[in-house]
This record gives sequence, C-alpha cells and structure tokens, in this order.
Amino acid sequence: MDFSKIWEEIVRPDGGTIIYVIMDGVGGLPLRQRETELEEAIPVHEKGTELEEARSPNLDELAKESSCGLLETVGPGLTPGSGPGHLALFGYNPVSCRLGRGILSALGINFDLKRGDVAARINFATVDRQSVLMDRRAGRIDSETNRHLCSKIMKSVKLDMEGEFFLETVSEHRAVFILRGSGIEGHIKDTDPQRTGLKPIPAEALDKESEKAANIVNSFIQQAKNLLAGEEKANMILMRGFDTYEPLPTLESRFGLKGICIAQYPMYRGISRLLGLDIAPVPDSPERSVESLEDFYKKGTHDFYFLHFKKTDSAGEDGDYNKKVDAIEQIDALMPRVASLNPDVLVVTADHSTPALMGIHSWHPVPLMIRSRYARVDSVNAFHEEACLKGSLGIRPGLHLMGLALAHAGRLNKFGA
Amino acid sequence: MDFSKIWEEIVRPDGGTIIYVIMDGVGGLPLRQRETELEEAIPVHEKGTELEEARSPNLDELAKESSCGLLETVGPGLTPGSGPGHLALFGYNPVSCRLGRGILSALGINFDLKRGDVAARINFATVDRQSVLMDRRAGRIDSETNRHLCSKIMKSVKLDMEGEFFLETVSEHRAVFILRGSGIEGHIKDTDPQRTGLKPIPAEALDKESEKAANIVNSFIQQAKNLLAGEEKANMILMRGFDTYEPLPTLESRFGLKGICIAQYPMYRGISRLLGLDIAPVPDSPERSVESLEDFYKKGTHDFYFLHFKKTDSAGEDGDYNKKVDAIEQIDALMPRVASLNPDVLVVTADHSTPALMGIHSWHPVPLMIRSRYARVDSVNAFHEEACLKGSLGIRPGLHLMGLALAHAGRLNKFGA
Repeated sequence: MDFSKIWEEIVRPDGGTIIYVIMDGVGGLPLRQRETELEEAIPVHEKGTELEEARSPNLDELAKESSCGLLETVGPGLTPGSGPGHLALFGYNPVSCRLGRGILSALGINFDLKRGDVAARINFATVDRQSVLMDRRAGRIDSETNRHLCSKIMKSVKLDMEGEFFLETVSEHRAVFILRGSGIEGHIKDTDPQRTGLKPIPAEALDKESEKAANIVNSFIQQAKNLLAGEEKANMILMRGFDTYEPLPTLESRFGLKGICIAQYPMYRGISRLLGLDIAPVPDSPERSVESLEDFYKKGTHDFYFLHFKKTDSAGEDGDYNKKVDAIEQIDALMPRVASLNPDVLVVTADHSTPALMGIHSWHPVPLMIRSRYARVDSVNAFHEEACLKGSLGIRPGLHLMGLALAHAGRLNKFGA
Repeated sequence: MDFSKIWEEIVRPDGGTIIYVIMDGVGGLPLRQRETELEEAIPVHEKGTELEEARSPNLDELAKESSCGLLETVGPGLTPGSGPGHLALFGYNPVSCRLGRGILSALGINFDLKRGDVAARINFATVDRQSVLMDRRAGRIDSETNRHLCSKIMKSVKLDMEGEFFLETVSEHRAVFILRGSGIEGHIKDTDPQRTGLKPIPAEALDKESEKAANIVNSFIQQAKNLLAGEEKANMILMRGFDTYEPLPTLESRFGLKGICIAQYPMYRGISRLLGLDIAPVPDSPERSVESLEDFYKKGTHDFYFLHFKKTDSAGEDGDYNKKVDAIEQIDALMPRVASLNPDVLVVTADHSTPALMGIHSWHPVPLMIRSRYARVDSVNAFHEEACLKGSLGIRPGLHLMGLALAHAGRLNKFGA
C-alpha cells in the first residue's frame, strides 16, 4: 500500500524542521562469515557488521534518545539502486516511480533536463579492428580527455532531425547523452553488451514510439565511431540506461517541504533536483557538508535538509571492511554538530546496505533512528542492525519513513474525523 | 504489494542452489493454554509450543547460523489451506492465484489435467431412504472398494455432451471427478452440505458460463446415485471444490528455477506439478525423502529442491501434541544430512501452523530460518516461535520468502540504477 498518497491529502502547510542524515550503504554483514578467507587473519568472534565494529559513541547516544528500527528500503530481496533507495526514503514509491540511469546521470551533472528529453549514460570504450569490445572503460581515460572527445563529437555530428543533442562529461570514461526534440521516446535497449569479447549492440527500440530516437542514436553512434577512429583507447562509445525525462511532482508540492540537498556526489544532487530540492554548493568533504548544513540551517530558509554521506558506500563497494568502519567513525565524529542544531526531527538511516563482505549493494534492511520530541524512545542503546531490531519502529518498508518524519514534525493532520 | 512481479523482472539466469525444508503445519501453540483439561496431568509450566517442547538440537544449531523470523503465510487472521500456503512460499500471490480443491486433488494423484478441465473432489457418502446424509465419509470405505465403485460408474454413466469425464480414486472414501469438453466452466457450488442430517445440494452454477457444466454434474450425480443404490455404505456421492484448470506460469519461467519436489503426500506433488517442478519418486518415509534429496542434490540437475515433511501437520490435525513433538524430533535428526549438502540457501519453515491444541490449521505465523553465506545472522539460538521473534527477518508475509531466497542465492539483479 502506497501511504504517500494519504500523507499528501493530510499534510499541513507548516510544521517542524526535518534533517535526513543518509549514510549511504551503511548496512552491512558480519565479517566472520567470510571464514575461509579470514580464519587466520581475524578471529571469528571479533567482527560483527561494520556498524557493530565501528566505535560510534555519538550515534549510540542518539540511538538512546530515539525511536529505532530497520528499513527494508524497496522490498524483500530487492537490492536498491541509488535512485529507488532514495526515492523511497523521500516518500516516492520506488516501484511506480522508475528512473533510468541516463536521467539520473544527467540530473547528477546539473544538466537542465526538459520534459521529454531522452537521456542515456555513455562509456567511452575500446574496440579492436573487428569492432569487438576490448575494454568497456577505455582504460579509464582521464576527465580532461573525455571533455576533449565530447567537444569534438558535439561539433561534428549531424542529426537527421529537428532538435539537438548534448554530450556531457561526467568523469573518467563516463559521459551523458541527451537528445531533445519532438516525437521521441526513450524505450531503447542498451548498446553496451556488458562484456568484452562481444560487439556493441545497435540501439533497438522497445516500442514503436521509440523507433525514431533509436534510429537517431544509431546514426549518432556511427558518426561518433568515425570521429574516434584515430584514438588509441577511446575509439568507441557504449550507451545504456536510456529513458525519457518526466519530472516528478516536487517534495514541496506533495508534502509542503522546502528542501535542500547537501551532497558531495552528483547522483544524489541529481535525485534531489528531480524532486525540486535546492542544491547547496558542492562540499568537498564530510566536514564541509556539515558546515554547509549548519549555515543553511541557521539561515532557516528550508524545512527539509538532506545530508548525504557517500564514503560508507564507496568503502563497502571496494570490499574494504576497515575503510567502511573508518568512514562510519568519521561520520560519527560529526554527529554532535548535526544533533546540536536540534531539528524537530533528526533521521539517521541509509538508502541500502553495502556489506564489505559482498562488495556490492544488497537487500538487507538498514538501521534507522528518528530523534524527535515526539519519538517513542525505546531501549535501543546502540546504532547498528542487531540493536535496532529491538526498536519501537520494527522492520518496515523504506516508503514509510517520510510519513513518520512528517508526523514527528507535526506536519500531518489527523486522518479522518 | 506483490513483489513477485519485480523479482521476475530482475531475476538472473543463474545463481546458487536453494533447498526448502517445509515442516508442514509445524507452528503451534503452548499446550498450557488447555488448562482445564490438563491442570492435574501436566504442570502448567512444562509445555510450550510443540517446537519449544521438542528436543531439536540440530534445528537450533542451524538457527544460530541463520537469519530468523516468522512468516504470516497468507495474511492476518488467514488460515491457509495447503494450496495457498505453499503457493505463497513459492512466490505466487495466494490471493490472486486461487486453486480449487478439486484441481489440487487431481494434480495430487498425478492426473494429467488439461487447460479448461473442470475438477471437483468427491466423497463417497451414506444417505438414508429419504436421501438425508447419514455419513459424509461412507464409513471410510477402503480404497479397493472405492476403485471398484469408480470403475462401475465410469463404465455406465453417459454424459449429454461432446467430451469425457474421469473418476479417479484418491484413497478411502475420497475420489476426484474431472470433466473435459468445450464450453464448460467450473464456478459451481459444493453439493456437500458439510453436515449429516441434511440432504446433498444440487450443483448450482455461480455464473452463466458454468451452467452447462452444472447441468452435466447434476445428471452425473443422479446416474451415479442410481448405480450405487445397492451399496450398503457408499450409496451417494458428494462433490466440492469445483474449479477450472488454468496452468500457472512455471517456477522456471518466472524465477529461472529448475525445481524438484520430494514429498510423500500427493497434494504437495500436485502443487509442485502445477508449478512445473519435477517430481521425485515417492519416498515412503522422511528418511527416504532425505536420501532422495541427497541423490538429486549430488547429481546437480536442479536449482531448487522442495523437501516436504507431512507428519508434523498430521499429528497436529490429530490433536496429538506428543506425536507432533515426536515428528519434529524425527525431522530434527535428519537435518544434519540436509545441512551438510551445503546449498547456497537453506530455508526451513512451514506452510501454516497446525497447533495440536486446536487440531486444525491456524493463522498463527510460522518460524523461518534462512541459512546462507549472505544471511545477516542474528542472536536467535533456537528454532521456535518465540526465539524467531528476535530474528533479523522480523514477521513478514509468506510471499516475501521466495524473493529473499532468490536474493541470498545471488539470483536477483539490482533494482534500478
């Protein structure tokens, strides 16, 4: 059941402030399970999950003052991508609001998407003389080279349509392609075969409405390939995550929240922009993120502050347990500054788990705490997965969070008379 | 929300092996609740649920290595029949996939149902001269007599339609009726009044499309009654659980799982056949069931192994608490053999509760454990209802299980980018 429609009905025009602290991918798994690899190096009993292992006295103190629980962000067995994970936390049904990777990437580089734009992610890649894929990342060319190549392609490619296209560097081998024009739709299959030793796949429309765009994309790829022919590494482009941009209703229009996003990484700023949040100047460290939060919070210009920390996820994706523990401890050290702002509602949670044991996102529920004057404080005295199991919020879908945050902020009227 | 549609979208073509150990009806209730009858015989503090009472060290050991929780198989307050209970565990929404008892019975005797067949369960019964029901089970006639009577009816009854019918013995007083022909539908009310002292009810169509079949059924019943007129006990037939057979999409087509069912009882083989599982030769004991599992598992021909134990449910239905405890201990003794196969995912749970206290299926959630390299092991150290409450899986719908099993087996891609 999508309760977010009900919150929309009963939301009040005012109420308290909400801070979301999202520790990306912070949920984990005990390292002791990797017995075969670790039996000599690490005694089995010593390592719980990354959160259990981390010395995080400030998070633990907050847990003592909060309602705790766990969020299954998207659903049972479902490993959330960054998009669905965050949409759920913001009160958007991640199953009905699907976003292509291309759209997210474009939003993430601050590209001003218009309704109807078709976007896709691009990888510069290396192919051999028979057009067989040798490196899906073109040896991870540097961003400067990427910018040069994008500019070259932008100048020379001619599209057979009324409209225009954009090719924007993201970083290293990654770029974004945006096609703007009338009568186009982006239900198009990836051209990236996802494996070396195969040839790139021609763009194929998944429905009749997308055939025009698929033809243009194929012409674009062919022209780009010709232009890149002299390049040693980046002599081909691969495209994936095609989608058509349809703006979502904003957080403000749905829940009356004027929000601001403070995030180092483009993806999270992109999602925030999609929902109409303001975007704070890009901070260059977790410390700067908190400073920025302090500045904006003290100005009082917003109701909803989304503070995103990425390092917990990156370390998990690297499979680096100790680095993830460090990242947690680093965030922990900053928490007193966040907590002392005394928002009406302080939420600490994650968009998904990224256990170092697995080195990828996972489906495991993430710990959650809500500190508020009106939180039903439970007996949980530490912020980790096992402790939060005993919390007063139980295990619940990620989509529940925004309703709880709004309620604790005094922003929801009674349901029914 | 039916997440099984999402799993279908993101399922991978390969991944790890999954073993389901289903202890039918194993969930229970503490016997001390039957105080009035037991206050003298059994001190109040001695008997918890059947699972709490059983000495089951192997299940408890497994619980220590697993994620634990409880499944509300179908829904709150809903007491699952065998069909819905198992469909939920297999990832089929038990509310939208409804199966008539007739269909299940036909599948259970290995009858080769065709799309569009109308099936119903039959009881041979005893009526008096005024056609009033005296015994709904005809004194539980033996299966041999049943076969003789079925054959007699099959030979003599003439249906007024293009098509054919089948009458197949199940056991004792139970048989299955299948009507095959064009233009028939099986939305027909039971003719079994469910109580002695009443007359059997004529078959009544619940919609216009089922009127043809209802008329044929009434003619069939009348002819059968005439043929049985000389019988001392089995002089009437009662029909219930009418339904039309529509094959479900198979487990393999939905989730990429090539499955095999190892079950002593026909009903569970029938459900498995409906979902396209292979059926192992019928084992004649729980030990033989495990032997069969070992054989198939070692051959490596399947991804999904469904091992079904019936005795826990039968004992519960008999209201025999001690027999149910024994049945649990018998399964427990076999668990080391199952566990030592080391499947990527080992699931132990039930399709519903059958508390000996009640002597029937019940709605109470059933304990669940998932052992896997990627399970988030919790502090649960015993496999019973109370202990599993503290587990990391929480209490969740039965329909969640297949998604969790697929995820732990590495068979689901990330949801969204």
